[in-house]
Amino acid sequence: MTEKPDLAGRIVTSLTNPTVKAVRALHMRKAREETGQFLAEGLKIVTEAVEQGRAPEILLYGRDAADHPLLRKAVAATLAAHGQVIEVTKDILEKIARRDNAQAVLAVFRQGFTPLESLKPQSARCWVALQAVRDPGNLGTIVRTADAAGCGGVILVGDCCDPFSVEAVRATMGSIFAVPLAKASVAEFIAWRNAWPGSVVGTLLTATVDHRSADYVSPTLILMGNEQAGLPPELAAVCDVNVKIPMRGRADSLNLSVATGIMIYAVTG
Amino acid sequence: MTEKPDLAGRIVTSLTNPTVKAVRALHMRKAREETGQFLAEGLKIVTEAVEQGRAPEILLYGRDAADHPLLRKAVAATLAAHGQVIEVTKDILEKIARRDNAQAVLAVFRQGFTPLESLKPQSARCWVALQAVRDPGNLGTIVRTADAAGCGGVILVGDCCDPFSVEAVRATMGSIFAVPLAKASVAEFIAWRNAWPGSVVGTLLTATVDHRSADYVSPTLILMGNEQAGLPPELAAVCDVNVKIPMRGRADSLNLSVATGIMIYAVTG
Repeated sequence: MTEKPDLAGRIVTSLTNPTVKAVRALHMRKAREETGQFLAEGLKIVTEAVEQGRAPEILLYGRDAADHPLLRKAVAATLAAHGQVIEVTKDILEKIARRDNAQAVLAVFRQGFTPLESLKPQSARCWVALQAVRDPGNLGTIVRTADAAGCGGVILVGDCCDPFSVEAVRATMGSIFAVPLAKASVAEFIAWRNAWPGSVVGTLLTATVDHRSADYVSPTLILMGNEQAGLPPELAAVCDVNVKIPMRGRADSLNLSVATGIMIYAVTG
Repeated sequence: MTEKPDLAGRIVTSLTNPTVKAVRALHMRKAREETGQFLAEGLKIVTEAVEQGRAPEILLYGRDAADHPLLRKAVAATLAAHGQVIEVTKDILEKIARRDNAQAVLAVFRQGFTPLESLKPQSARCWVALQAVRDPGNLGTIVRTADAAGCGGVILVGDCCDPFSVEAVRATMGSIFAVPLAKASVAEFIAWRNAWPGSVVGTLLTATVDHRSADYVSPTLILMGNEQAGLPPELAAVCDVNVKIPMRGRADSLNLSVATGIMIYAVTG
């Protein structure tokens, strides 16, 4: 007797099921890079993806979600794109999500980076570049803020954490599907920046210009350094202006996602 | 043979050591409430606390930190305040911190809330009140931002998460020792707010006033609702003005700590 193929309606209960194993592996950067896939959680987010024409390659759901009309739409979209649909147990959902009370819908999508040269600076008033961002929660939260503020995209410069990690995707709250992401080495970024039509603004604790008094020519590209070291001199040097968010208490810095949010809204109002 | 008392110089290697057990229990809210203690991590933060006259009640350190001059100061401060100092193994540090590569210095401090009626509104230009905040990372990050911007304090309204949880304290990056924290029921807050000498500003997705165009009379008290539901009508109703941070993309909200940071800097500049 051979195992039946995974189809909607069949309930997978075993952690040794090959699809379940492949989905769980997406917690590892290596597996994400090899497959080009990532994991997103929750019916709301999966529905948003489907509405934007991004069908899951694999859709997993628990009994609790089985009768939801939005799930039926997601199932239809997945099958139409020749994806795989599997009902799984609550235990498997929790094992995949690595937490109790996991969402009842999980889905695997194809990663998408936009080539740097395809970005259209004039299409938005504000853009964000992050150099060597380390914390996936910060990265995801910044993508969410960039979306909320209508930024054109987020450019990852140098050795950044993975925007498609489970933790980063979770922090985007669905904005991972809405915000163009590009990546560049420091050298590529500097070359690309030279053709930027508006202001390139670095944020630097040692700058003297206040973040609210700078002249931001549209489109404005905000450049943020990483959590530990801030912006390195070679990148601060290629900015039109470096600005500072004032520090008035004992704390000598802000959380990166908070600082980026303050900068984005200083530019976009 | 009886066990020797815990003293500086003695190395504790066992997880069953009563002090180690008591420190580990501080991950649980119940233990924190019963003892009135909390756990802070890292020599930098412990040093900042000591400089502000807050000596640890228990100081634990690993071999890696043993020879650091700042550790010696912290040990002296702890012993002078009749606290306990223990050298522990790396394994125990990791078990207490619940992560690999734990900090080499951990310390237990006494919690401190400031009574609502002791706060002096005129002592700062901006204050923050959070209603039913749920995520300890958000709460800690907001305390850090409030410190960086020189806010007078943070008031926790209603059923909030614990600012003294390990995760919240970690996110404050030491600002837990710098920012006065108060707590109030919704009724207590409303009564107290009636005597507020400046503007009370609610942040509300459904408000029509832009967050940058409102008239903020100093001292300004910013009131933020929780992550899921935003500000409830009963609290929005007691604000002088409700403002909105504009949403221009697909995302329909910001992360709470980002939104609070944007508001704090909109008020303080």
